[in-house]
Amino acid sequence: MRILLTNDDGIYAKGIEAIYLALVAEHDVTVVAPETEQSAVGHAITFLDPLRVKPVRRNGHFFGYALSGTPADCVKIAITELMKPPPQMVVSGINLGANVGVNVIYSGTVSAATEAAVLGVPSIAVSMDAFDTSDFSSATEFIPRLLRALELRGLPPGVTLNVNVPNVPHSQVRGVKITHQGKMRAVETYDRRSDPRNNVYYWLRNKAILGDPHMEADSSALAEDYISVTPIHHDLTDYPLIETLRSWQL
Amino acid sequence: MRILLTNDDGIYAKGIEAIYLALVAEHDVTVVAPETEQSAVGHAITFLDPLRVKPVRRNGHFFGYALSGTPADCVKIAITELMKPPPQMVVSGINLGANVGVNVIYSGTVSAATEAAVLGVPSIAVSMDAFDTSDFSSATEFIPRLLRALELRGLPPGVTLNVNVPNVPHSQVRGVKITHQGKMRAVETYDRRSDPRNNVYYWLRNKAILGDPHMEADSSALAEDYISVTPIHHDLTDYPLIETLRSWQL
Repeated sequence: MRILLTNDDGIYAKGIEAIYLALVAEHDVTVVAPETEQSAVGHAITFLDPLRVKPVRRNGHFFGYALSGTPADCVKIAITELMKPPPQMVVSGINLGANVGVNVIYSGTVSAATEAAVLGVPSIAVSMDAFDTSDFSSATEFIPRLLRALELRGLPPGVTLNVNVPNVPHSQVRGVKITHQGKMRAVETYDRRSDPRNNVYYWLRNKAILGDPHMEADSSALAEDYISVTPIHHDLTDYPLIETLRSWQL
Repeated sequence: MRILLTNDDGIYAKGIEAIYLALVAEHDVTVVAPETEQSAVGHAITFLDPLRVKPVRRNGHFFGYALSGTPADCVKIAITELMKPPPQMVVSGINLGANVGVNVIYSGTVSAATEAAVLGVPSIAVSMDAFDTSDFSSATEFIPRLLRALELRGLPPGVTLNVNVPNVPHSQVRGVKITHQGKMRAVETYDRRSDPRNNVYYWLRNKAILGDPHMEADSSALAEDYISVTPIHHDLTDYPLIETLRSWQL
């Protein structure tokens, strides 16, 4: 397949190189990724500023294009402008840090994949439940297999698969679970500090994690060393509430 | 009610002042809004950088607090740090430009309201289908009435109301429709240009709008001069697809 590969940790991250190496023998892979780390940018799109594209080499060879924008920008510009013909599949990752539970809405990794779905291209987001690792084997073994299944069966329009892999070597993965986005979230506070000129500033700090007890939640599968695959879309409507609101007669 | 008021056009925008003036007689309103325009930032959260808060005056009186961050940052810091006790309701807007169809996922206005819902505070996002106006009466008449209904009836946890008002004076609004998020989206291209040093840059341009023929879509209500109210949540799971994916036996 013609694959667009992107991420939100930036084009020099380890995760995007690992998945590139796992896909390039079998597929025609084009990398368009942010020049710098873009974590937690959500679905930000750049239109107040221009975007610049520059070729990047890694390990002595041409690797891909760095964009002065967000992950969603990378996908939008690659599909509408840079890749002709457009890609048949978009892969976003491998992100360091799981994108499960409420965190999905903050994720640049997932938003890149969602942007592809909006533009009519099937997509997957891939994240690993680790903040530092060099062993991406649980992802690099599974993703080529998943892509073969997707090539065969297709995805309905507008759908993205949000894939999260546990931080264990490939041989210790217990299997694959199809999950729903759960309710796990971080409880956060702000540190209130003073700068060298005695001006106050605030810095976001994670205080604790609120888990999700639901067995079929994305975070639950991951915690048991399963790969989690969640089908997601971008229709945020809470359909069951529509009739209730109609009865209010606003 | 104790209301937190925010937006994504920035604390100096006309829309946030219009809704402030419509709410302040009846409610205890605290403004925490971005220092600068933050359109299309989506659900971006700032954690790589510190945040600064500064008091802002408008028309010779204290108006609120400007934050060096995104709309979602404003809500997170106001609820967890700045407002004690926390607000009972978050209002985000009035945004210039409708947030309907696919655009909802890019919207800082909506993401601010979603962040409130994540943190357990009921919320509404308010946008007007206009890019420049001084007549916000269709919103400033409806929103106080909507807030009275919400105070009486409440919203289920995690739900936000995405409100879009037509660009007509209050007297020409045809009514209120409860809608679903539709499929309207912009078709976009990039202008490819050269800077004064002959380096190439790209700039996003709207080429056309793909409408949504569905009568109950948010954009359809708006086009007929109805106020559109859509209940939205932050569970992106495409539930119908879960069983299909299980049958693939990945």
